[in-house]
Amino acid sequence: MKTNYKIFNDPIYGFITIPKGILLDVIDHPWFQRLRRIKQTGMTHMVYPGALHTRFHHLLGALHLAMQAISGLKQKGVEIAPEEEEGFYLAILLHDIGHGPFSHALESRIVPIHHEQISLMFMKAFNTIWPGSMDLAISIFTNRYPKTFLYQLISGQVDLDRMDYLKRDSFYTGVAEGVIGHDRIIKMLNVVDNQLVIEEKGIYSIEKFLVARRLMYWQVYLHKTSLAAELMLQHFWERLKQLVITGQYSIHHPALNYFINEKVNAKESEFEKQYKILSCYALLDDIDIEFEIKQATEAEDELLRLLAFGLNNRQLFRLEFNPQDTKEDVLQKFNKAGFTNSMVLKDLIWQGIERNQIYQSNVKDEIIILSKKGDLKRFAEVSEFEMRQKIIEKKFICYPKKRLLLRL
Amino acid sequence: MKTNYKIFNDPIYGFITIPKGILLDVIDHPWFQRLRRIKQTGMTHMVYPGALHTRFHHLLGALHLAMQAISGLKQKGVEIAPEEEEGFYLAILLHDIGHGPFSHALESRIVPIHHEQISLMFMKAFNTIWPGSMDLAISIFTNRYPKTFLYQLISGQVDLDRMDYLKRDSFYTGVAEGVIGHDRIIKMLNVVDNQLVIEEKGIYSIEKFLVARRLMYWQVYLHKTSLAAELMLQHFWERLKQLVITGQYSIHHPALNYFINEKVNAKESEFEKQYKILSCYALLDDIDIEFEIKQATEAEDELLRLLAFGLNNRQLFRLEFNPQDTKEDVLQKFNKAGFTNSMVLKDLIWQGIERNQIYQSNVKDEIIILSKKGDLKRFAEVSEFEMRQKIIEKKFICYPKKRLLLRL
Amino acid sequence: MKTNYKIFNDPIYGFITIPKGILLDVIDHPWFQRLRRIKQTGMTHMVYPGALHTRFHHLLGALHLAMQAISGLKQKGVEIAPEEEEGFYLAILLHDIGHGPFSHALESRIVPIHHEQISLMFMKAFNTIWPGSMDLAISIFTNRYPKTFLYQLISGQVDLDRMDYLKRDSFYTGVAEGVIGHDRIIKMLNVVDNQLVIEEKGIYSIEKFLVARRLMYWQVYLHKTSLAAELMLQHFWERLKQLVITGQYSIHHPALNYFINEKVNAKESEFEKQYKILSCYALLDDIDIEFEIKQATEAEDELLRLLAFGLNNRQLFRLEFNPQDTKEDVLQKFNKAGFTNSMVLKDLIWQGIERNQIYQSNVKDEIIILSKKGDLKRFAEVSEFEMRQKIIEKKFICYPKKRLLLRL
Amino acid sequence: MKTNYKIFNDPIYGFITIPKGILLDVIDHPWFQRLRRIKQTGMTHMVYPGALHTRFHHLLGALHLAMQAISGLKQKGVEIAPEEEEGFYLAILLHDIGHGPFSHALESRIVPIHHEQISLMFMKAFNTIWPGSMDLAISIFTNRYPKTFLYQLISGQVDLDRMDYLKRDSFYTGVAEGVIGHDRIIKMLNVVDNQLVIEEKGIYSIEKFLVARRLMYWQVYLHKTSLAAELMLQHFWERLKQLVITGQYSIHHPALNYFINEKVNAKESEFEKQYKILSCYALLDDIDIEFEIKQATEAEDELLRLLAFGLNNRQLFRLEFNPQDTKEDVLQKFNKAGFTNSMVLKDLIWQGIERNQIYQSNVKDEIIILSKKGDLKRFAEVSEFEMRQKIIEKKFICYPKKRLLLRL
Repeated sequence: MKTNYKIFNDPIYGFITIPKGILLDVIDHPWFQRLRRIKQTGMTHMVYPGALHTRFHHLLGALHLAMQAISGLKQKGVEIAPEEEEGFYLAILLHDIGHGPFSHALESRIVPIHHEQISLMFMKAFNTIWPGSMDLAISIFTNRYPKTFLYQLISGQVDLDRMDYLKRDSFYTGVAEGVIGHDRIIKMLNVVDNQLVIEEKGIYSIEKFLVARRLMYWQVYLHKTSLAAELMLQHFWERLKQLVITGQYSIHHPALNYFINEKVNAKESEFEKQYKILSCYALLDDIDIEFEIKQATEAEDELLRLLAFGLNNRQLFRLEFNPQDTKEDVLQKFNKAGFTNSMVLKDLIWQGIERNQIYQSNVKDEIIILSKKGDLKRFAEVSEFEMRQKIIEKKFICYPKKRLLLRL
Repeated sequence: MKTNYKIFNDPIYGFITIPKGILLDVIDHPWFQRLRRIKQTGMTHMVYPGALHTRFHHLLGALHLAMQAISGLKQKGVEIAPEEEEGFYLAILLHDIGHGPFSHALESRIVPIHHEQISLMFMKAFNTIWPGSMDLAISIFTNRYPKTFLYQLISGQVDLDRMDYLKRDSFYTGVAEGVIGHDRIIKMLNVVDNQLVIEEKGIYSIEKFLVARRLMYWQVYLHKTSLAAELMLQHFWERLKQLVITGQYSIHHPALNYFINEKVNAKESEFEKQYKILSCYALLDDIDIEFEIKQATEAEDELLRLLAFGLNNRQLFRLEFNPQDTKEDVLQKFNKAGFTNSMVLKDLIWQGIERNQIYQSNVKDEIIILSKKGDLKRFAEVSEFEMRQKIIEKKFICYPKKRLLLRL
Repeated sequence: MKTNYKIFNDPIYGFITIPKGILLDVIDHPWFQRLRRIKQTGMTHMVYPGALHTRFHHLLGALHLAMQAISGLKQKGVEIAPEEEEGFYLAILLHDIGHGPFSHALESRIVPIHHEQISLMFMKAFNTIWPGSMDLAISIFTNRYPKTFLYQLISGQVDLDRMDYLKRDSFYTGVAEGVIGHDRIIKMLNVVDNQLVIEEKGIYSIEKFLVARRLMYWQVYLHKTSLAAELMLQHFWERLKQLVITGQYSIHHPALNYFINEKVNAKESEFEKQYKILSCYALLDDIDIEFEIKQATEAEDELLRLLAFGLNNRQLFRLEFNPQDTKEDVLQKFNKAGFTNSMVLKDLIWQGIERNQIYQSNVKDEIIILSKKGDLKRFAEVSEFEMRQKIIEKKFICYPKKRLLLRL
Repeated sequence: MKTNYKIFNDPIYGFITIPKGILLDVIDHPWFQRLRRIKQTGMTHMVYPGALHTRFHHLLGALHLAMQAISGLKQKGVEIAPEEEEGFYLAILLHDIGHGPFSHALESRIVPIHHEQISLMFMKAFNTIWPGSMDLAISIFTNRYPKTFLYQLISGQVDLDRMDYLKRDSFYTGVAEGVIGHDRIIKMLNVVDNQLVIEEKGIYSIEKFLVARRLMYWQVYLHKTSLAAELMLQHFWERLKQLVITGQYSIHHPALNYFINEKVNAKESEFEKQYKILSCYALLDDIDIEFEIKQATEAEDELLRLLAFGLNNRQLFRLEFNPQDTKEDVLQKFNKAGFTNSMVLKDLIWQGIERNQIYQSNVKDEIIILSKKGDLKRFAEVSEFEMRQKIIEKKFICYPKKRLLLRL
């Protein structure tokens, strides 16, 4: 009794059924399996201990929603050929394969290439392994395929990627308020002139989706403690790189050493070069960084050791949004408290800006609403829901607590 | 093995535990048991077949949240004496007991008194049955008790009543997007100078709460089909009343006959009179109206019969928001379709306005935010979330579909 | 923008999508709409206040599962023609339409015909309204269609009817332990030689299903308080009938009067007669009985009045399983407590037996397991889970509490 | 605005509130934080990709249930002093701290000591850090405290540990059928003569609990693929140890090297020695093993490399329960398929037995039921639910698939 599909359990959708063939072949490939070891939300688990879910699960989830969406659109008479369906599924399945260790938290820091660019490289590499298999997927993913809605379902204001990650992140963090009605939104999708539109009845669900997204930003993605952890991770990595390059610290990890010492740049490199980069990059996941953190808790370098210890034992920096204190103020407080090594201390006080924007109404991929009478309108025109257009920015300052400083 | 509490199962909260004593005595009283036969959301079940939940369950739920809220506030050091606790619980348990058949859908139509006024009468009547038991509850419910936050927990911008009904209505309708994080909001409650405040960390949850509320308004409470059903119910009742008063139709129901023939007014009447009204009013629930609808499907009066048939068999009127057609236009369409009895038809085309306002920032009970440093700020000042202050109004027109007209 | 389907919201499955055509026509028919007023679980809401869900919602839910099951089977290569699909959907949609007021609680008491028999009459009547439309549905429902698995999906040890009602009843009562993994079981269905089988991997889910079912029986369906309420309802109805027949009490309800006075029997009657019965029967629902209960709270007859008052105000009888007291013992206790009207009291003490059987292994419709190697085995053979074969019986005694007796 | 508690988000219970003081101090300690990096269910995530939850989260959950249970028991009049409460909470919080990398999957393999023994060592060590703080916890944990029910709540047939892990594992795997009604069971707990008992009304919930547990065993804990992954992990570790000891392979990990080379035995060693072991052991978590797996994918040793590659890329062995093939049969199949290196192949075919027992009725910690009349009875006596007493055993054979063998 052979089946022609494989079932994955998902606490969110129940079952995810994937037909045997190229989709499962890709999933079984070590490059894709590696995503089992890359957490979806970087350091968020430091604040929300349940948030250990991975890019692997997210991509299966996005694929699941994609299958639902296509089935709904076909029911409404939208024409989608079987090969377009497969190409689209491959594109959404692989759209995030380019993520490296800790996803966004270390984005462009191990390799100075955006993860979507790397996803494209993986698709091209798969296209060599299974010749031609990725042609359509690549065309859709790079938005060169005429049926634009397929691209918009992967990357738009209301796409399936966002639908899955909002749902999934809210599920695993336990921030119930981020829950969105993905099934309702999917039911409201339609296509006019190859463009994705939302049927009028879906307006409230879209508003809810945008609010949920905004809420998840401030409550989860930009949570000050989780942000502090990510800053620590970034500073840890930059310090480690610097020490390795200057020969002051050594690690045993071939792939990490390769990326620290080579200057990799996507655009210049021809594919041969890319393939080598890619194979090397495909060896990396959270484990490698987490292991280096653990190792570095015994490092000689004070800064590296402190960051490693803090990260490993969750003694995280304090982060304040819209702070009144300047870097100088914090330094003085440290001095008063008896910490006087200004050289090191200065490197432990970080300032920056976080920004977030819910919905951009002037961009070209804005949400289009299909009225019952068949007219198309811009969402901003129709919604009674007013959203600030300006980008919301928050300055911050971030520095260690005394308890951690004591370990200097 | 006697227990000193009773447990009610609730699909939403799991268990609702209520201590034996005056609270359970009130719940066991026929006046309160009657609420088992009054649907929470009037005719909403015509659109959302699961929405058959009752005022009874809602009040138990609100009481449950009240117990959680008080427990949380006491943990934070807010002083609340046992008798205040009981008074508060009684006030929230009884705040909706004044609702009559179909709750808001027939509000003030059977008796021209607002349901809160009637709730107060019931409290006073219970105060006679169990002398003095309701003193504090009445003081809190009428906002004369100095600890204003107790009143605000029952009736404010973010009160426990709303928390339960949003949660409950969204649960039973299956409109998952209305779900709110009641437990999180309750955790964020605090009291300053006897006023209810929300701790700063709760801002996003409040925003979510306001959006969920707005969404529930347009998607559920003011759903056009459910609104059509409620208009039909109101016209049915007014027609029935008129026919009974003019002797053209008779019903066998003593209590209904009493209210149709007597002119009842709350303010003038002294308590003796009220008690009689109350006893009579306490006999009424959804069953009585639903039975009269079924009976009237055989009525001689065309209008009454049509409305009864439509309500009973869910052949509901069409309702259009912001319609282009005038009453005259609709009438002409009817004529073209062969329906020419203008006398009756005119009475079957209804026009009106629905309004909704999410949050009023200039009113005195606005939401107050307690910052981490202890400052108080108005929610509208702090939230990055902009909401239109103006009341949103929607005109509508409502008229029968042909299928129903054929039964004239 | 016309759609060719209608969506029903369901708190359990999210959306139930039903294509326009005969299925929706049947749903829109007054006979089917009537099921909106028949509670799925009789008097269970007296114990679990959330259990107000209806036969209407249950049948939509069963239809929804049916669509999932067929889609899954077709994916596995089971051949099912479009007209078979429709016939099957109609059969499952209508399999419970014969239920009358309070479903099982008054089964065979208003009309001495089992509800399945009446469901068949309704199907035949629909077959006259839309000629030929029900041919296949009737053939499947009466188990005369060669593809036996279609019948087994409606009525078998693990059928879709049970799957929906266990899920639905557990959802609305809030008895979370009754939850079953309907989607997993449905995934495990298969067909061999036109017989429904369960794939081996589904054994644990079946065991869980059987345990959940048993748990729901004792915790919900045979809950002693809910059983007491149902016994009160039955005695109320029998008393009312007797008083009406003997002219001691009168009701204004034509359809109820018809059934009380006529002797209706299914088998003898030819269809003409059936159609009249059916039209009359189709006028009845919970409202009618609930209204008579409310009316009877003022009846002259002591017994009727007491039962009506108790039912209306939830002053329910006490029920003890496996009681030590005999009827005589209870009577003596009553006497000691000062209640001496033995004539009435005797009629208020009821004795009986309840039984429940989880799984019958010797019957012909037993569960068949399909092993990975393709062998068929009886479930009882394969499962490590031992279940008692004997029927579990519980004697009970049921009588009023003093508080209610005081109203005699 | 300082709070005296900390809140942890939990997707399962919503919020877990923990008062500041010794409980939070313990949680903040690196030894406890380390549990953030130890997966609760070993290799289960290979089958259920969501199962990445940790011992850290499980222990917070068990503590949460403990607080609920104590609050419920106190409400029923069971006397529990504040210091007993704290001791009990510490005991349950720390009962699993002794787990090492991959929990049960490598149990007793890195150190030949059972994890509960190690948990006790940690408690004793904490008792040195915060003198006396653990006295009561240790007394309860070792079942020497007179109020036996406190021990039984941690380790009994129906304890809070099991309640949390069944709930949590079923939540994260998405195996909805494992869900138990923990709140209901907790409501049914009571104490008689210092022994934990279950009130009669809770019998069905207990039965459900036992079935859910059994289901989780076969469907999750002993899932054949997850079992295969664990066997691979164990063989990987044993091979690695052997190669390191014999000098054929070297790793850079000080703590791992320490345990591989030292022979550690709990009973003989005095505490000084233990403290060193403990500090070293406390450095280990899943990361270390996962890193060694990744490293070993390049190892020279064929066997080690194959296991590492298979584990890292999820090319898992096939496992058959109750197999017909012997080791010899499998070997022959391999030969036929062209794999002839019998020396290596023999080491890749594993045989064994798995066992599971739901409920032991003859042991001293059996479940005691408290009847409504106050009698105590053994669960097995009262339940109508018959469970096989004998231990269920399943033989298995486990070997690589061809795809993986090709990499030899």
